[in-house]
Amino acid sequence: MDNQYNEILNKAINYRRDFHRYPETGWLEFRTTSIIAKELSRLGYEILLGKEIIDEKSVMGRPLETVIKENIIRAINERADEEILKKMDCLTGVVGILDTKNPGPTVAFRFDIDALELEEPEDENHKPYKYGFSSRHKGVMHACGHDGHAAMGLVFAEYLSKAKEELKGKVVLIFQPAEEGVRGAKAMVKKGVVDDVDYFFAMHIGFGSTKDIGLVAKSKGFFATKKLDVTFKGKSSHAAAYPHLGKNALLAASNAVINLHAIPPHSEGQTRINVGVLHAGTSRNIIPDKAIMQMEIRGENDNLVEYMKNCAERIIAGSSKMYETEYEIVEAGSAICADGSDELIPLLIEVGRELNLPDIRVDSNMNGSDDATYFIKRVQEKGGKAIYSQILCPITAPHHNNYFDFDEKALLYGVLINLKITKKLLK
Amino acid sequence: MDNQYNEILNKAINYRRDFHRYPETGWLEFRTTSIIAKELSRLGYEILLGKEIIDEKSVMGRPLETVIKENIIRAINERADEEILKKMDCLTGVVGILDTKNPGPTVAFRFDIDALELEEPEDENHKPYKYGFSSRHKGVMHACGHDGHAAMGLVFAEYLSKAKEELKGKVVLIFQPAEEGVRGAKAMVKKGVVDDVDYFFAMHIGFGSTKDIGLVAKSKGFFATKKLDVTFKGKSSHAAAYPHLGKNALLAASNAVINLHAIPPHSEGQTRINVGVLHAGTSRNIIPDKAIMQMEIRGENDNLVEYMKNCAERIIAGSSKMYETEYEIVEAGSAICADGSDELIPLLIEVGRELNLPDIRVDSNMNGSDDATYFIKRVQEKGGKAIYSQILCPITAPHHNNYFDFDEKALLYGVLINLKITKKLLK
Amino acid sequence: MDNQYNEILNKAINYRRDFHRYPETGWLEFRTTSIIAKELSRLGYEILLGKEIIDEKSVMGRPLETVIKENIIRAINERADEEILKKMDCLTGVVGILDTKNPGPTVAFRFDIDALELEEPEDENHKPYKYGFSSRHKGVMHACGHDGHAAMGLVFAEYLSKAKEELKGKVVLIFQPAEEGVRGAKAMVKKGVVDDVDYFFAMHIGFGSTKDIGLVAKSKGFFATKKLDVTFKGKSSHAAAYPHLGKNALLAASNAVINLHAIPPHSEGQTRINVGVLHAGTSRNIIPDKAIMQMEIRGENDNLVEYMKNCAERIIAGSSKMYETEYEIVEAGSAICADGSDELIPLLIEVGRELNLPDIRVDSNMNGSDDATYFIKRVQEKGGKAIYSQILCPITAPHHNNYFDFDEKALLYGVLINLKITKKLLK
Amino acid sequence: MDNQYNEILNKAINYRRDFHRYPETGWLEFRTTSIIAKELSRLGYEILLGKEIIDEKSVMGRPLETVIKENIIRAINERADEEILKKMDCLTGVVGILDTKNPGPTVAFRFDIDALELEEPEDENHKPYKYGFSSRHKGVMHACGHDGHAAMGLVFAEYLSKAKEELKGKVVLIFQPAEEGVRGAKAMVKKGVVDDVDYFFAMHIGFGSTKDIGLVAKSKGFFATKKLDVTFKGKSSHAAAYPHLGKNALLAASNAVINLHAIPPHSEGQTRINVGVLHAGTSRNIIPDKAIMQMEIRGENDNLVEYMKNCAERIIAGSSKMYETEYEIVEAGSAICADGSDELIPLLIEVGRELNLPDIRVDSNMNGSDDATYFIKRVQEKGGKAIYSQILCPITAPHHNNYFDFDEKALLYGVLINLKITKKLLK
Repeated sequence: MDNQYNEILNKAINYRRDFHRYPETGWLEFRTTSIIAKELSRLGYEILLGKEIIDEKSVMGRPLETVIKENIIRAINERADEEILKKMDCLTGVVGILDTKNPGPTVAFRFDIDALELEEPEDENHKPYKYGFSSRHKGVMHACGHDGHAAMGLVFAEYLSKAKEELKGKVVLIFQPAEEGVRGAKAMVKKGVVDDVDYFFAMHIGFGSTKDIGLVAKSKGFFATKKLDVTFKGKSSHAAAYPHLGKNALLAASNAVINLHAIPPHSEGQTRINVGVLHAGTSRNIIPDKAIMQMEIRGENDNLVEYMKNCAERIIAGSSKMYETEYEIVEAGSAICADGSDELIPLLIEVGRELNLPDIRVDSNMNGSDDATYFIKRVQEKGGKAIYSQILCPITAPHHNNYFDFDEKALLYGVLINLKITKKLLK
Repeated sequence: MDNQYNEILNKAINYRRDFHRYPETGWLEFRTTSIIAKELSRLGYEILLGKEIIDEKSVMGRPLETVIKENIIRAINERADEEILKKMDCLTGVVGILDTKNPGPTVAFRFDIDALELEEPEDENHKPYKYGFSSRHKGVMHACGHDGHAAMGLVFAEYLSKAKEELKGKVVLIFQPAEEGVRGAKAMVKKGVVDDVDYFFAMHIGFGSTKDIGLVAKSKGFFATKKLDVTFKGKSSHAAAYPHLGKNALLAASNAVINLHAIPPHSEGQTRINVGVLHAGTSRNIIPDKAIMQMEIRGENDNLVEYMKNCAERIIAGSSKMYETEYEIVEAGSAICADGSDELIPLLIEVGRELNLPDIRVDSNMNGSDDATYFIKRVQEKGGKAIYSQILCPITAPHHNNYFDFDEKALLYGVLINLKITKKLLK
Repeated sequence: MDNQYNEILNKAINYRRDFHRYPETGWLEFRTTSIIAKELSRLGYEILLGKEIIDEKSVMGRPLETVIKENIIRAINERADEEILKKMDCLTGVVGILDTKNPGPTVAFRFDIDALELEEPEDENHKPYKYGFSSRHKGVMHACGHDGHAAMGLVFAEYLSKAKEELKGKVVLIFQPAEEGVRGAKAMVKKGVVDDVDYFFAMHIGFGSTKDIGLVAKSKGFFATKKLDVTFKGKSSHAAAYPHLGKNALLAASNAVINLHAIPPHSEGQTRINVGVLHAGTSRNIIPDKAIMQMEIRGENDNLVEYMKNCAERIIAGSSKMYETEYEIVEAGSAICADGSDELIPLLIEVGRELNLPDIRVDSNMNGSDDATYFIKRVQEKGGKAIYSQILCPITAPHHNNYFDFDEKALLYGVLINLKITKKLLK
Repeated sequence: MDNQYNEILNKAINYRRDFHRYPETGWLEFRTTSIIAKELSRLGYEILLGKEIIDEKSVMGRPLETVIKENIIRAINERADEEILKKMDCLTGVVGILDTKNPGPTVAFRFDIDALELEEPEDENHKPYKYGFSSRHKGVMHACGHDGHAAMGLVFAEYLSKAKEELKGKVVLIFQPAEEGVRGAKAMVKKGVVDDVDYFFAMHIGFGSTKDIGLVAKSKGFFATKKLDVTFKGKSSHAAAYPHLGKNALLAASNAVINLHAIPPHSEGQTRINVGVLHAGTSRNIIPDKAIMQMEIRGENDNLVEYMKNCAERIIAGSSKMYETEYEIVEAGSAICADGSDELIPLLIEVGRELNLPDIRVDSNMNGSDDATYFIKRVQEKGGKAIYSQILCPITAPHHNNYFDFDEKALLYGVLINLKITKKLLK
């Protein structure tokens, strides 16, 4: 048994470190997708790619065409499979299906695969640097464990395929692109990826733990959120010679920023707003004709996000009117609230106990957002059960910090938990 | 001659001190109008009142109906003539016409008659208080010399009527209501009061002088201006229990205030803006549902006022939109730019020299606004000549300060200047 | 028994309607205090007044000296006892002590007595108007039931004094001034009014009820709050002639208003802020030299109020600096959070059941603030037990609305509940 | 004579097109300076470089050390003289002195040499592109004619050296770095470059002309200006999880932007302000910890710039205080007002007439700023005469527009005008 554990762990570590070396941000996971798809294919899974799993109209926050092209070329240079890339048709993410052909339920697992725009530190105290698997992509880094998720998914796929004969029903492995910025899940859900799923599981590793490996059966308290990109377009003019001819996009944006933060609280629950980025103007003696804002809103429930969005739109429209500018609001990301199915809690706790995990919790609050909520809600709507769990493990810095690293043993337990769940549900 | 000077001065002082005792603000000059009308009538002038001289649709900044009614009753208690009040039909101001029946040109003089909302000081250093003619109306005071203008106009009317036989043509004496806040002239001009006037004169006393009495033949550089009353109407709500249900009129107004002051300068010339008064809300724990602003805009020319007005309207509309309030903008006053007729300068200088005035100036800049500009522009449009002059005299404090008082000798010279002008033009 | 109920109710109604007729706002309850003190004295209570019960340095939101003087004269004209007024020394509120001289615990009851600045409607649908006991004081009105609290306290005092022989220990009746705006309790607590109290009760009537009379044993979830009066002092200047010489207090205030509302939320819990009133400026052509704001902040705990206060002070200081104005922040009211003693819940529920109240609840959230929390916290600090309860009854409009009226039967049950509590604790 | 004109024009065009090909922005004119210095040296001029002519403490708006290093390497690759570069010691600009050794006055000419951050269009309609001399430096372009100024200065230097024998006194040719953004002149003046100058001339080509070549003897009405770089430093925090822990640099900056634009006008004359660039924040879910603003202020006189600067500093300090950020204000450029010496007007008009220029004007208003004013003021302070002239010629687009190009014939007349001036003053 220990031998098998070592084998699983080693395989997972190998994958993880490779993914860590070549991190790719949302909608640019060409190399990652290609490697996963190729491996799943090799293991006998049916592979779905591109428009088979992505509803293009529902894609949010996708980079510019030129950036996509550049990254495809980059991925090819990094040994991505060109055949598979062609099938992807510029859209990342892959779904692998293991059909036992024996009648039975369908179980789905979500693994997110994208990285973040962060500079990985060249510091001996940072393990990926010390052990030589730190990012080869300047300014991009896996700092939220999705490299681990992808690795865990692949090793799970392998051991699952070996156990195929023992199982009935179907297993669907969803390797989701663009979870960061909550941009990818909605497009998969809209395409129907989980429409026939009876049981859905999403898991996230990390979060810190002083007791080795832990398991939270059900994560709850997700913030619903919308990510908005706002552009104000005015008219430039020489600020000294013709001040009255300009339409000042920066003044419009500045008013918007302040008043967005002044949206009143709502008696139904907590809300949040942040304008995290503002860029405006080109030259100190020219009235700025353009201002670009990246912002987000959140709420304890979907209704509160709707309230914040309505207020925000009004404030942006009003600020724009004040300075006679034009404006555009683009939804660059979205996650909803969803409440995992309590019926799956006992199953997870049982699995955790069988694995002798030292820290098992029924539930715990997430103080953030994840678009896995779209999958959860859809599965529940169609009569299935869905849950979001956490595999707790020691981490070296908070998620999204560039010193983030996690205890790779979590990968082993991730694979084992998923295997046990599947075997219990599909035996 | 000296005796006649004394007589003129004494009569003017008597009138002036009576008007000073009973100051009346714009559109409430019921007692003042009644006294002037009665006296003009006694002197043989044809009298025009109410809708004969006021275009009601062009009236700006008129008080509430109830305030008007109260002030009519007050005026009656202060010996206003009820017959005349009836003819006034709630509208103040009076025009007196002296028709010599001999063919000749028409000369018009404008005298403004309204007071200010100021508390007159009870201070022995303040002459009106010391000599017992300070205001009987709490919170109202003549602090811009219009009491003197009215007095000057009446004594001028008397001596003019005595000289009637020497003259040809017609003299029109315009006692204008509501010059403060530039609210009255437009309504008289729209009614055609100066449509047939060949020569028009407006004079203002005061401005300070270290050399006894002075004369500025032509005042120039008037700011065009608009006075705007702005109301934001939102929705109140308990600020702790239901913060999201309010529509915050104070937040809308606060944004408007700041951004109004940020309207860019115009390369054509100086502009000004001021929100001078803001009142909002009723209780500290209630979201304010109403905010009222009193503001003004000015510009070196009419075009600049138009520019400022357009910008202001946009900012108010935008601020209102931000907080989902409704708003209303009412024009409470207006003056235009006008440039006096240079052809009249020599006449005024000649008159000043004949009177041995120690300080005679060709022209001087007004750093403010006066709606006499409506008369000036209209007279010029119809082919006449019009000018605005200043009778300089020592003053005790700046205009509109509640310690303002002027050297009453200015009244004597005001009467004499007007008499000489008329005799020269209509002999 | 029914007879006694009728007697109690009638007495309470008489008092209540008298207090309703002569409503007095915080720190001006001269007539109310005088009547209560006189009656308590008549009933044999020891009476404490003025500086005996009020720590002057802790008084908040007290009106101007001149207003206090005027109201004392008014109260005298309304038959307030001059002897008592003298003892009050311009400070309202009264404490009556019934000492049984038998050893035993001390039980205290808080009754607040002040009214609100509201215009009582002259409308036949409004019972106080219909039955002729509506406010004789223009712009002042009891619209939160404190007239009922005072009445309830007095009738309770009477029946308690009749039962004196059956009791041990001491009863302290606290008639607190200035609860509205949370201005009065702190000064009483600082003076030590509840320092020796073993059991403390505060009750509030109203809140609506569809089932006749109800009882909430423990009110919880009080917002801590601070009420702040903020003044910006700048420098006036003629807005057209000398715009650069002004120091614009309205611009300072407008910036403060917007940014106060933009204070970020706190992850510890709900916060609130409201600038409810702003008055600035005197004339549309003068740069405003003064702006006065009335605001409040709240938080789910005392720490959050501290956080909001620190942020608010910084924003006010910064806004003031921007426009070179001076500013002053005065604390005009304050309430803290306090959590009633659960040990007293069973006692209240028992009393409610004995009285067959149809709607008895263990606890309920207050969505507001009450400075009774100062008493509660102090009693608990000294080892006693304290609780805040609600006597639910039908109301005609929300509290603080000028159509507010309550079912007077609540007064009967208020008296009975207090009597039963006392008898159980001091028998 | 025509032949000499052709020769001059051809030489000037050659230089100009070379400089146009290799444009260098302020403080990075390494190649330009090197070429000028080498040529002046060849012509027999005494050469001053680096700290000989630049007061380092007075340098404004200099790029980062790394950028300077990169550009020196770039210049070397573009055939800049390494010997000269060494003498420059990282500081650009060069002064050439022609000393006739015959006693006589000193005449100085200022030529500015820097380019702008603009993208030159690849468009056949744009002559530099069509004729193959458009910018080799991406994002940098000569669009204000300084390439022409440098060329004019060099050809003038050549013909002057040929005429050396006819002259007395000294000629000082000042090739000033960093005129754009008004960053370079002050440092040269502080170093004493014009301390011994009796006559100073600065000329600018362009401005458009419908009549071939024109000459404005005296440019006046320069705006004084200051260029300010402002940085707000706050503290980042996760916007959803810990909103209260951030110190929001973007909110501080947004308040500053709006209120900077609301600085009241000054009765002494026109003022201007512009925040032309704002960059803040890094990620939409993080509270921005940094905001960088590039702004400028201007005024009709130095006093007004002082007024604007004081107001701006107060507003920035106040905005910063509101959000508890730190801030830094760096002066990145500065020009003063200066009034050219009227005594030099006749000389220029005479020269213009001798050259039969079709459009000669006594004076004309500049609607902008130029730091040549520092030279002018200094020369005048020391008893000399100084003037700023314009050589009008057809242009293809406004100055600072990337389609700007000028009629190169202006270069010929620039050289001729300077030669004639020198010969008249030093014969």
